[in-house]
Amino acid sequence: MAGEFELIGRHFNWPAPQGFLGVGDDCALLPVSAGHRLAVTTDLLVEGQHFFPDVDPEALGHKALAVNVSDLGAMGARPLGCVLGLSLPHVDDAWLAAFARGFRSMAELSGCPLVGGDTTRSSAGVVISVTAMGEVPLEGALLRSAAKPGDDIWVTGTLGGPHVALELLQGRHPEHTTVLEEVRVSLERPLPPVSFGTALAGHAHAAIDISDGLLQDLNHILKASACAAHIDYPALPVHGALQGLGPELVQRAVLNGGDVYQLCFTAAPEAKGRIVELARQHGVEVSVVGRIAEGSGIQVMDSPLPMGQDDYAGYDHFR
Amino acid sequence: MAGEFELIGRHFNWPAPQGFLGVGDDCALLPVSAGHRLAVTTDLLVEGQHFFPDVDPEALGHKALAVNVSDLGAMGARPLGCVLGLSLPHVDDAWLAAFARGFRSMAELSGCPLVGGDTTRSSAGVVISVTAMGEVPLEGALLRSAAKPGDDIWVTGTLGGPHVALELLQGRHPEHTTVLEEVRVSLERPLPPVSFGTALAGHAHAAIDISDGLLQDLNHILKASACAAHIDYPALPVHGALQGLGPELVQRAVLNGGDVYQLCFTAAPEAKGRIVELARQHGVEVSVVGRIAEGSGIQVMDSPLPMGQDDYAGYDHFR
Repeated sequence: MAGEFELIGRHFNWPAPQGFLGVGDDCALLPVSAGHRLAVTTDLLVEGQHFFPDVDPEALGHKALAVNVSDLGAMGARPLGCVLGLSLPHVDDAWLAAFARGFRSMAELSGCPLVGGDTTRSSAGVVISVTAMGEVPLEGALLRSAAKPGDDIWVTGTLGGPHVALELLQGRHPEHTTVLEEVRVSLERPLPPVSFGTALAGHAHAAIDISDGLLQDLNHILKASACAAHIDYPALPVHGALQGLGPELVQRAVLNGGDVYQLCFTAAPEAKGRIVELARQHGVEVSVVGRIAEGSGIQVMDSPLPMGQDDYAGYDHFR
Repeated sequence: MAGEFELIGRHFNWPAPQGFLGVGDDCALLPVSAGHRLAVTTDLLVEGQHFFPDVDPEALGHKALAVNVSDLGAMGARPLGCVLGLSLPHVDDAWLAAFARGFRSMAELSGCPLVGGDTTRSSAGVVISVTAMGEVPLEGALLRSAAKPGDDIWVTGTLGGPHVALELLQGRHPEHTTVLEEVRVSLERPLPPVSFGTALAGHAHAAIDISDGLLQDLNHILKASACAAHIDYPALPVHGALQGLGPELVQRAVLNGGDVYQLCFTAAPEAKGRIVELARQHGVEVSVVGRIAEGSGIQVMDSPLPMGQDDYAGYDHFR
């Protein structure tokens, strides 16, 4: 049986970039710049709660980091590096190798190198803790509290795919299982538009990543900014594979479906040209889906089905 | 039952210091300085593995942060802030309040404010993830690889207390239970000399915090620095309550006992006066306990009992 230090060495001892000190001391060291703030975000993922025991470990490694760099992008921050805590009931070499492969590919895609961590034995299932750090210009951070009446509301990528994938994996809607292959990747391998988020710093106002559903996450911006929002349902970018599904499922998936890890952000109408240009440079699809207004609450206009009270609620772990 | 956001708000929504953005956005923001490196360290603590289910939650909160700021001090870094991940099987308000109280008192003692986190339901026991960040001058970091032949080897505080406390709590050495009250605090409420570690940056060479035992942790310095060490056993600062215990237990506790969270560091003999003065300013007890030499390995001189192979081994989670 491998020792703890060997275990770390074998799967996670990737070379640290120039100017970094990686695994092997009391702390990792990351370069920091003047005139910036350090941005930091953390997530704790628990087997049975956030993922199934039989999940593809490579997808799990990918997603464990993706959800954190997504938060950096939603702040307008440039990733600096991340640390990983891993608690395992036993050492499964093939599982670890696949997990590390998925984590590393996301680290490379997002420019967020792994610089340290902690591994430990778990008496229960697998537990994964990821903390990602980035830097953002002092004045450019995309705060939830920065939306202004008159701002356009933008969404990157498409909506609804992860929600439909999750329901199909849970055995619901058996008449639509043929759709699963098309939507599964959006649930298991989200690709948050991190570098685009970094580029938005100073151009957009407020931003959030869509993890709990568009309405619930937009609502965080509205509360923090003391504003209201009008959403133009027909303008929402629906995942292409959802076309043949029932309107009830599609509407719920688009408005309330979580696990999207795309951005919802607001910006002055004058910034539209610049934002479209940045999106083109970063290969990101963007849509204007509504407008920030004075007041409070969200109004969804021209939805296929009437909106009920429940449609405005998201997911809350301890409710 | 309280929702997740309320739960965070109730126990951990402490005011963020000037220049910080705390809980409530995609990331926390921490100020960073020019000419410095960001230091980051993380720990994952699992119920049944690192603490018992019936542990005093206030002591647990204290220690969860203490072990991380200890790593910052061992790097010569000044704490900037920390994030906390907490996975709980159920919401126990009294438990959480006590945990938060212990965590907060350590945050205030060490100048390491909580700036963000993640809470989630656990299907198994309590899991705690802490990541602490600090900054260290570009050239002053106390790297494990920086020890030089001729350096004095220093230890802060005393050794052996936590090891004896743990064995007594496990029901061993029933003839010595009267000692428990004296050593228990060193196990449950370690006070790492963080500000002293910060002050050592630029004055000391290598440093490490003693978490797995003096010999095992010193050995990390020796391997990274390609050096040997001579330890003068009679110079080691033994915890005062260990006086009446058998020599075998005391020697093992002092050389191999973990959970100490004091510093072992090396410095040029010329730095001695400066180090003693810094220790006085920071209210930290320091002892010169040996010397770095050319070669490899550790030699313990004048120990009460002869040293065997096992005495040089520490603790390894997956062995």
